[in-house]
Amino acid sequence: MEIKVVKNILEANEVIASQNRTLFAEKGIYVLNLMGSPGAGKTTLLEKTIEHLKDRNRIAVIEGDIASSRDAERIADHAIPAVQINTGGACHLDGNMVRGGLKELNLDQIDLLIVENVGNLVCPAEFKIGENDKVMIISVTEGDDKPEKYPLMFQVSTVLLLNKIDLLPYLDFDMEKFQGDALKVNPKLEIMTLSCKTGEGLDSWLSWIKEKAGTKGS
Amino acid sequence: MEIKVVKNILEANEVIASQNRTLFAEKGIYVLNLMGSPGAGKTTLLEKTIEHLKDRNRIAVIEGDIASSRDAERIADHAIPAVQINTGGACHLDGNMVRGGLKELNLDQIDLLIVENVGNLVCPAEFKIGENDKVMIISVTEGDDKPEKYPLMFQVSTVLLLNKIDLLPYLDFDMEKFQGDALKVNPKLEIMTLSCKTGEGLDSWLSWIKEKAGTKGS
Repeated sequence: MEIKVVKNILEANEVIASQNRTLFAEKGIYVLNLMGSPGAGKTTLLEKTIEHLKDRNRIAVIEGDIASSRDAERIADHAIPAVQINTGGACHLDGNMVRGGLKELNLDQIDLLIVENVGNLVCPAEFKIGENDKVMIISVTEGDDKPEKYPLMFQVSTVLLLNKIDLLPYLDFDMEKFQGDALKVNPKLEIMTLSCKTGEGLDSWLSWIKEKAGTKGS
Repeated sequence: MEIKVVKNILEANEVIASQNRTLFAEKGIYVLNLMGSPGAGKTTLLEKTIEHLKDRNRIAVIEGDIASSRDAERIADHAIPAVQINTGGACHLDGNMVRGGLKELNLDQIDLLIVENVGNLVCPAEFKIGENDKVMIISVTEGDDKPEKYPLMFQVSTVLLLNKIDLLPYLDFDMEKFQGDALKVNPKLEIMTLSCKTGEGLDSWLSWIKEKAGTKGS
């Protein structure tokens, strides 16, 4: 019975997510759903991405958090529109929450919308929000055993960003095992290693998103 | 309507958790619910704790994971009973799952049961399993802004273990802010800083759990 409830919620969400997606397509907005554990580096990645792309793309951000508006404030400091959604306990964003957030944005003035999901390696993977691509970010400090233990997020993502590689010298992290296990779960996964702190590896990510997002007003 | 569903699930869980708790009390078992994000160091903490206490306490472990039996295998290597529960997608353990796991254990031969919850800083905090205490573990690599963003887990925990302090020299982590924010959310929270890797700070944790768990067969 509990399973049935979850299934109904998921089905209702699919409908709304698909409506969001139609709206984004009409407006010519490329939408990214950025997911990862607390502290994986989602907001820092966003800040770096915005700094590199803001003269090229009309960017907006929706921030999903259980509580606080700290992340939206960090983003707004970069002079782009940022909407904070507080889920009030829910462990993920869903289509309906994102739809609510869209009301705060002028969709005719955006070509790249990045949605930073609630920090969680599990639940966000289950709920579409109308995105074009899901991108997951994970820090090397989280350990090399994560693909095996949290397979769904690896399965649904287009890109896996492995962050904080500047900390590798201080950790026992088996890169070959991690990447092999991730590809076992999702053979199409595009894996990029980077450090948002030092900037190493950021270029590949920026090339990828530039190709996806097109150019300002195009 | 969605909120109502969640409420019913939570209420049903309270009933089962309370039955588990009665059973644990009858059997004289002290039960710990260990929670934290993926990669915070839950299993490593468990391994260190087992090594220090296994001549003193009759320990058993229940491992909660979305998938894989990797953690239970790590624990079983220490020659104590370990049960793996795979939640098959669910982002937390609940009272009923733990009850199922108990069938695999001889409760007359245990005085300390540690339940390692699914790696998640959000959902496990909502579901009681019949534990005496909730302990949360968080790594300094997750950032100093977590109490403000994920308040519930800080609110419901008795002890906060701040792990991986050996990495502090390589991070921007404001210890005063983190501890201040955590205590703002939960003024009774007992905060211990440690490194499971180097062993620094482990003594305070071991003293705490020794006092809680009593001694073998007592």
